[in-house]
Order: sequence, then structure tokens, then C-alpha cells
Amino acid sequence: MNISEYMQQTGLQARQASREIAKADTGVKNKALLATAEALDAARETLVLANEKDLESGRANGLDSALLDRLALTPSVIDTMIEGLRQVAALPDPVGEITDMNYRPSGIQIGKMRVPLGVIGIIYESRPNVTVEAASLCLKSGNAVILRGGSEAIHSNQAIAECLATGLKAAGLPESTVQVIKTTDRAAVGELITMPEYVDVIVPRGGKGLIERISREASVPVIKHLDGICHVYIDDQADPKKALDIAVNAKTHRYGTCNTMETLLVHASIADLILPELEKAYAEKGVELRGCEQTREILPLAREATEEDWATEYLAPVLAIKVVADIDEAIAHINQYGSHHTDAIVTDNYSLSRRFLAEVDSSSVMVNASTRFADGFEYGLGAEIGISTDKIHARGPVGLDGLTSQKYIVLGDGHIRQ
Amino acid sequence: MNISEYMQQTGLQARQASREIAKADTGVKNKALLATAEALDAARETLVLANEKDLESGRANGLDSALLDRLALTPSVIDTMIEGLRQVAALPDPVGEITDMNYRPSGIQIGKMRVPLGVIGIIYESRPNVTVEAASLCLKSGNAVILRGGSEAIHSNQAIAECLATGLKAAGLPESTVQVIKTTDRAAVGELITMPEYVDVIVPRGGKGLIERISREASVPVIKHLDGICHVYIDDQADPKKALDIAVNAKTHRYGTCNTMETLLVHASIADLILPELEKAYAEKGVELRGCEQTREILPLAREATEEDWATEYLAPVLAIKVVADIDEAIAHINQYGSHHTDAIVTDNYSLSRRFLAEVDSSSVMVNASTRFADGFEYGLGAEIGISTDKIHARGPVGLDGLTSQKYIVLGDGHIRQ
Repeated sequence: MNISEYMQQTGLQARQASREIAKADTGVKNKALLATAEALDAARETLVLANEKDLESGRANGLDSALLDRLALTPSVIDTMIEGLRQVAALPDPVGEITDMNYRPSGIQIGKMRVPLGVIGIIYESRPNVTVEAASLCLKSGNAVILRGGSEAIHSNQAIAECLATGLKAAGLPESTVQVIKTTDRAAVGELITMPEYVDVIVPRGGKGLIERISREASVPVIKHLDGICHVYIDDQADPKKALDIAVNAKTHRYGTCNTMETLLVHASIADLILPELEKAYAEKGVELRGCEQTREILPLAREATEEDWATEYLAPVLAIKVVADIDEAIAHINQYGSHHTDAIVTDNYSLSRRFLAEVDSSSVMVNASTRFADGFEYGLGAEIGISTDKIHARGPVGLDGLTSQKYIVLGDGHIRQ
Repeated sequence: MNISEYMQQTGLQARQASREIAKADTGVKNKALLATAEALDAARETLVLANEKDLESGRANGLDSALLDRLALTPSVIDTMIEGLRQVAALPDPVGEITDMNYRPSGIQIGKMRVPLGVIGIIYESRPNVTVEAASLCLKSGNAVILRGGSEAIHSNQAIAECLATGLKAAGLPESTVQVIKTTDRAAVGELITMPEYVDVIVPRGGKGLIERISREASVPVIKHLDGICHVYIDDQADPKKALDIAVNAKTHRYGTCNTMETLLVHASIADLILPELEKAYAEKGVELRGCEQTREILPLAREATEEDWATEYLAPVLAIKVVADIDEAIAHINQYGSHHTDAIVTDNYSLSRRFLAEVDSSSVMVNASTRFADGFEYGLGAEIGISTDKIHARGPVGLDGLTSQKYIVLGDGHIRQ
């Protein structure tokens, strides 16, 4: 069987399984999740052995230590996978939720019912625990899933797939509800993203390059998560203490996350006051500053920021700073250079906060809060399959609801259209 | 300027205008709609003259009378356009609606705000009144729009575009909020559907061929409306009177609409009772029947239905009939041959009605009601830009909400992530 035939078969099996999982009771789905947790717990040795094979090839292929870290299935990573399954089992089931039931003048009663999307394709890199995380969210939301992990994690992913199969079997669900691609051939990805008859949506999880390539080549809808070029704008009516706290937290809480601030905008009339304070705080954390001309008049040690800096997601202890004349310049800068991910204003002015919320075109817009809050857990979604920077279908952190759709339901009593 | 440059310029202007219309007050948008209505009323003569040019070329090019009918801007069609604008002005503004504001344990308050998508591209055929209808919905939902009508309606559409420009100007909105493509060159469509930097979503309105071609070639998300192969399933526990009413209404109320029933499924134990009655009713309306073997044992005059019939949207007084053993066969048939548009069950059985609602994978699923109810006005959306047979973003009748997205908003008071 060649790659194309293999993927067609995988797709067909997923489609068939999707019909079963779509109508599975909440209890049955939870049973599969909890049985998978047990299977992982029982398979700790097998998992570590499989993972060791991947780590060995990784070392032989010269993977750097950060990548090897992400690849490692340590006891604590396995604990986290098990705990994650239990948490997803505890989440409310989105499927079948009925909302907005209302009577119409014609006498029909109309509302919406939440339903699974069908088959989800997930394409991801190195971290094998994503296999469990993504599979559990798809399963809970009543979808079948085809997982394509990184070739460097193939043995680990297959060992995890065995545990998922055990869990599904224990609950009487088709094992092909969750399929982990068995080949490392890159052609499999090309097939997966061009089978609209079998795959309803693709969720790529990885670097911007991967996501852009997949979006370009896919004939299936893609839930995209591109850059996080996030801004904090400190308005002249900001409380300086809150401004300082938020600007430091948004940049230094974690450097490598997509909701980390990359550019700080400061109103010209408060720049003299706030920038020297910030410079001290950032210096303590070892953050390199790059500034516009006005910034460098106040902070002469800052490097010059270029046009490129405004459009860069550093994912590192580097911050670009721009002094702006007013909120108009701030909003225009954010909408032009930002990535429509998460942007915050610090202000105590009522009208400006309302304007910022309305006019900043980003998936999360905040007032007096750190951009670091932009994530599914902090938002109370209970889980997160990714953060969408798209406007279509899902925007911002995507939880179980993002893996579902809503159909209309109509209840009548013999009603006909006049 | 070549087509590509012209479309790039159109796209850029739309993107710029989208920023203005996105933040326009409800009152301003309504003023533009009502001023357009006045402009249309004042331009009746101009509209008829422009339309006469289109009709002349249409006749010269041998357009059939149905197409010429659709093309004609009669006084009553102009009245309908004017009335439509007033109705859209009266609809609630979806933009800025804030929902689900809740406090999280961290202290932040989080909710969703409804926002425009940005720039909508609409591609449609013959009927020039779609120009006003689509433009008004985009405008009300805070979007800029690029309209590409049929080449046969170019003069009518340009005359209507003038009225829209007058309306926008009267409200102080950029005229390029609504742009009607000035060229009939087909290359313009190819450009429009491959400018993701300027166009956020494409809504094609027309035949299946048009929509399939656009979906295949677009690099911009498409809200698709493919076939309407709708079913009514008459269960053995159906009330015969309701079954008869619904089956007749769903087929004969209008033949050319996408929510018209194309295949009737009848439970084997009620077929003897119900089919002869139905045959009489359909005969009165001149509906041709095509049946499976069991159907033809009861209705010997029915033609034999082939495999192709189950997958055909007749849009004509033709009906395929299949006798099924039970609800399982009915649901399997609908999910296999249907187009996931609208399907109904007639039954008085509680459990079967729940199963049908849950398991039929269509954008509208009905119990004891005619499929003809599946439309935006009947559902209370106030307007309809189309009916989506997709699961992503919008499903079923698409009203103003379908032309918007939701962003997260977060309100804090100096909150930082711990």
C-alpha cells in the first residue's frame, strides 16, 4: 500500500468512526478517556522504552537539547498526560447542547444544537504529550481524529496510540476514532490536508513556517495560529503602578509564549515618567530594549528599533518600545504591525478603554490586564487545542466548542409553510 | 491599469474602508441604508434605462426568458429593494454586542464582543437586486464589500452602485465601503478569491458549478451553499394527516428552492397506507414520482428510481421515493445521499424524534415541520445572505451574525498573571 492509499484508508476509517463517536453518550466518552489514563499508567515502562528509541535517534541526528527536552517522556510528563485525561473527562460535554429555542410567528420552535465537526486532522511537532492532549479534546467533543506527530517522536507516539486504542476499546468505541499516522513520510501530510471528503478541519500546532505552508496547501479549512506580536499600550491616564506591573508581567512572565508582549507603546506625556522605571525593572530581568527615536532620548542605552522590530515576534528577552502621540497612533500601530492576537491598554480613562476594546482588531483585547492571560485555561475554557488568529469559525483560544459546530433544529406539530 | 492592478486597488480601498465602517455607529450605518433607499427611489428612471441596456444585450445574446425575468428591474423589484433597505436598517446591529462576561478566579472579567469580519467578497449571477441586498447586509454588519455581479447585469449593477455611493456619502461613510466591480472580465473573479490580504471571506451566490469552482480555486475562506437534497422521513408512528400535509408542502410549495424536498422516505409498515394518498395529492400538482422497488409495488405507475436519483437535486416537480425498514435505514440514507442541508422526520414517537435530531448530520433538522421553513426569515434572522452547507464558521441560514466574528475582551484592574 502506498502513502496515498494508506491515507485514503485512514481517512475513510476516520469518517466511519466519526459517525459512532458523534452519537456516543457523555459517559461512554468519559469512560474511554479514563481507561486511556489507566492504560498510560500501566504502560509507563513501555512508554519510556519507546521514548528512549526516539531520544537515541534524536541524539544521533544532533537534535539540540531544547528539542530533546520537548521530546522526553519523563515520569512527570506522563503524570501530566494522565491528569490531563482526567481533567478532560471532567469537562462538560459540548455535544448536544441546545440553545436559543424560541417560537416563531409561524408556530415552529427553532433553536440550535451543538454537534461535532466530524474528523479533525492535527499536525504537530516533537512533544509526544500533544498526542494525548489533542486526542482527548477531539474525543470529548465527539470527533474522530487523525494525528500526525513529528517523525522524531514516532515511537513514543505509537506507544501512546496503543494506550488510546486500549481506552477506546474498553468503552466499546471504534479504535479508529483516534488514528496516529504510522509513517514518517512527509507525503502523508500533503495527503491529509487535501482530503476534504474525509477531513473536516486541520489544526496545525507548531512554528509559523509549518502553519503557513499548511494553510497555503490545504484544501480543507485550517484553524490557524500564526504569530503572537502582542502589544501593551500605556496611556497618559494610566495608573503608573499598574502600568509597570502589567508591562513587566506581559514581557517577563514567560518569553517563549505567543501571548507575551513584544512591543510596548507609551503615550508621549507619560514616557518621561514611566520609561526610566521600566528600564530598571527590565534590566533586572535581563531584557534587551530597542526603541524609537523618542524612546532613545529618554533611554539612551536602548538600541535603535528598525521597521522590522515592529513586526517581529521575538519569543526572547527583547522588547521594542515606541512612544506614541495618542491612542489613535497606538491603535493604528497595533492594527498595522500586530498579528491580531492579544493587545492591552493600561488606562483609567473610561472613553479610551471603550475605544480600545472596540477598535483594536485582535482576538483578545484587554484593559488593565497582562496579555499573558490570553489562554484557554485562564479564560475558563477548561482546555485549549490552540489559539486562532483567524476570524473565521474560531477566534482566540480554542476549546471544546471550537471543535464543534451548531445545527438548527426545528420542532413543529405538522407545520407547513404558508 | 490591468485587471490585477485594478483588483489590488479595489481590495486595498475595501480594506481601508473596512476600518471606518467597522467603527461606524448604528445610526450612521442606518442613515446610509435609508439614504440609499431614497436614492433608489429618486433614480427609478435611470435604473430602468440602465436595465434596458442589459435586457437588450441579453435578448441579443439569446438569454432565455427565465434569465431575462431575473434580470429585469421592474418597478416592483425596485420597490422590493427599497423596502429591503428599510428592513435591514430596522434590524438590530450585531456589532459590539457583548456576551458571556464572567469573572475568573484570577479576578479578570472575560467575555466576547461581536465584530465585523472585515471585507466580504460576493460573487453572484443575473439578479441585480442582489447588489442592494448583499451590500445592505454587509454594511449593517460593519463590513466593507466587493460585489461581482453577472456580466449580463453590468449596467443595472453600476446604476445601483451609484445609489449606494450616494447613500454612503450622505452618511459620511467612505464610498469604497461598497464597491461593485466595473469590469466584466472573468479574470476579476480569480483575483478576488485569491487576495487574502484584502478579502476575509467570499460568499458565492449561484449555481453549484460556480460555487464548486470558487471553493476549489479560492485561497480565501468561502461560505459555501451547495445542493439542497432535502428529505422527509415518514415514520410508522407518524400522524398520517400531518405526514400528508408536510410531504405535499415540502415538495410542492415551491419547486426551485434549495429547501424543497427531493427524496421522500417512508417506513415500510405505513407505506401501504400513506403512499396511495400521496400519489393522489402529487398527481393533482403534476409531480412525477420515481420509486424504489417496494414503492413501485404500491405505486405501479411510478418510474424506477436509479442510484442517481437519490443524489439528485431536481429543483423540479419530480420526487424520488424510497421505502425503508426503520429509522436506522432512513438516517443512513440521509447522511449518505443528502447534502446536509435540511431534513425532517414526521413521527409522534418521542425517542425517535430525539434520535433523528441528534443523528442526522444536516444544517437544519426538523420534527413534524416542512423543510420549506429552512430560511433566514422563517428562522427570525431578519435577513439572509445565503444558506451554508458547511460546518465551519456558519451553518444553515446565514444572517447578519454570520458576517461577524467574536473577539475576547478582558477587563482587569492591574491584573497580572501569577
